[in-house]
Amino acid sequence: MSRILAVGSVAYDSVETPFGARKEILAGSATYFSLAASHFVPVAVVAAVGDDFKASDLDVLASRGVDLSGVQRLAGRTFRWAARYSDDLNDRTTLSTELGVFAEFKPSIAAAQRQSPYLFLGNIDPDLQRGVFEEMEPPRLVACDTMNFWIEGRRAALDLTLAVIDLLVINDAEARLLSGESNLASAARKILSMGPKALIVKRGEYGAAVFGSGFVFFVPALILEGVVDPTGAGDSFAGGLVGCLAALDRPGPEIRGKDGGWIEEAALRTAVGAGTVMASFTVQGFGVEGLLAASAEAIEKRQGDLARMAGWTPTRLPLRRQR
Amino acid sequence: MSRILAVGSVAYDSVETPFGARKEILAGSATYFSLAASHFVPVAVVAAVGDDFKASDLDVLASRGVDLSGVQRLAGRTFRWAARYSDDLNDRTTLSTELGVFAEFKPSIAAAQRQSPYLFLGNIDPDLQRGVFEEMEPPRLVACDTMNFWIEGRRAALDLTLAVIDLLVINDAEARLLSGESNLASAARKILSMGPKALIVKRGEYGAAVFGSGFVFFVPALILEGVVDPTGAGDSFAGGLVGCLAALDRPGPEIRGKDGGWIEEAALRTAVGAGTVMASFTVQGFGVEGLLAASAEAIEKRQGDLARMAGWTPTRLPLRRQR
Repeated sequence: MSRILAVGSVAYDSVETPFGARKEILAGSATYFSLAASHFVPVAVVAAVGDDFKASDLDVLASRGVDLSGVQRLAGRTFRWAARYSDDLNDRTTLSTELGVFAEFKPSIAAAQRQSPYLFLGNIDPDLQRGVFEEMEPPRLVACDTMNFWIEGRRAALDLTLAVIDLLVINDAEARLLSGESNLASAARKILSMGPKALIVKRGEYGAAVFGSGFVFFVPALILEGVVDPTGAGDSFAGGLVGCLAALDRPGPEIRGKDGGWIEEAALRTAVGAGTVMASFTVQGFGVEGLLAASAEAIEKRQGDLARMAGWTPTRLPLRRQR
Repeated sequence: MSRILAVGSVAYDSVETPFGARKEILAGSATYFSLAASHFVPVAVVAAVGDDFKASDLDVLASRGVDLSGVQRLAGRTFRWAARYSDDLNDRTTLSTELGVFAEFKPSIAAAQRQSPYLFLGNIDPDLQRGVFEEMEPPRLVACDTMNFWIEGRRAALDLTLAVIDLLVINDAEARLLSGESNLASAARKILSMGPKALIVKRGEYGAAVFGSGFVFFVPALILEGVVDPTGAGDSFAGGLVGCLAALDRPGPEIRGKDGGWIEEAALRTAVGAGTVMASFTVQGFGVEGLLAASAEAIEKRQGDLARMAGWTPTRLPLRRQR
């Protein structure tokens, strides 16, 4: 059984950035998440693809040991998304979104996967997210992503989902929108009162701020040359984060904090660092190519670079050695 | 003799933020810089004020031991600036700029101040900056600020100034404009080739990235509630940074790096942390009120908060104990 069950999209993206363009390349939140997390623990994906989805693209995920038994192949087209990035890569315009089979997607969890101790709810309808959660044996940790579309359009459903999750992983703008607070510290306080035990605020090229019970900390992004395509950075970040947390977890209370906090600060900091490192590979290639090129050695080295940049005592990441 | 000589503006600002409005309050780059730096070493200011400048406002600077013998009082009005901030405080619109006596300002350095070992060149015309530098005995360290107005309008003069300074302290957008590079790492490499031994890129609420010979590191901003007015944050940051560096400096080579680097990474990290802490007080009040309210004890405590947030082994700041 996989340590993590991840629900999200497996898709084809077309992107244009100042550094090039690619058409219909393998992408989607569950793709990036699972490729990143698979460096730490076994991952299973629950998603839907169309009958146009290439076997060679499933092989990419399988090559990293991702369990694809929960990927439904439905009649119709695979989810497609197209976007163009600004010159500094900080803004993007969505050119088209074609839901395809994703419009009918009803996640269903096989009996064998209902006991996965970690659950990642990718950015889909909050009712679907909660439906997946309710099919599971209570996991040790539930992490969740969302976006402005759900925050604005499905708030009541989202509130019910927020009440059952442990870790919310969103960006600055989403945190402000969800809380109605422009000050980030105030926004975080409000969001933590909605249910999540910890909030990870992704701030793109600046890093991530983490808020929990009695702590707040910051993990910088690596400052790198050769950044060509930010697509998937947030999902790769979540994959490294949740994958590393799952790998650090041991039976018993180790990663459960004192005085009401669920997640211990030290483990969370290491895991957010792991997410940062995985995202740094993603942005250095189009689609998944940067992430796929990352060897365990390269990940370890970059973790050392991050520790030096951030001023931390270096620690080793709990990478899987097998392949 | 003061350890730092700071050239810049002493001004009256009118600001509107979502949290309130203030009219004609004490401000200016040299004001914020010197109030922040004075917690670490003695500072002298070179600036000009008009005949309308209130003695009580000079008393504010004098109360922190700032040497005001280089502040010229000229016939005419004090420099005034008015601005309105956006709801999230990240953008501002300049409503008016009235140069007043600042239009005729020709800095002149008294003989006694020409041997100050640290020189801060606030954001003024690059020729004036270089004129001040040339009046000095060669300082141990020259730090410099600039802005889009000089980068776009006085580039040749600015290039000559960049060639003589050690530390350039600018923001993201200025670094991109100065280098013509949108990637920050590429921008930094190019700027370091223009002369500065180290580049500090201020990123507002996100923190600061630091680039030197053979190192790059990041210092996060403190995530705080009660932020009401960002005016002066950058100058307070520079004051804490240069003040702390000056306080850490001892006769001999301690803060000079190996292999061509002028400034040692560890000292610079501590100093950037000090700048971050001083800026955090400034933004919690209008004008200088947040900075003035910061006691040595509060500064030490906040330095501890920063170390915890950043994941550093806590270190003490080299604060002056006398008052």
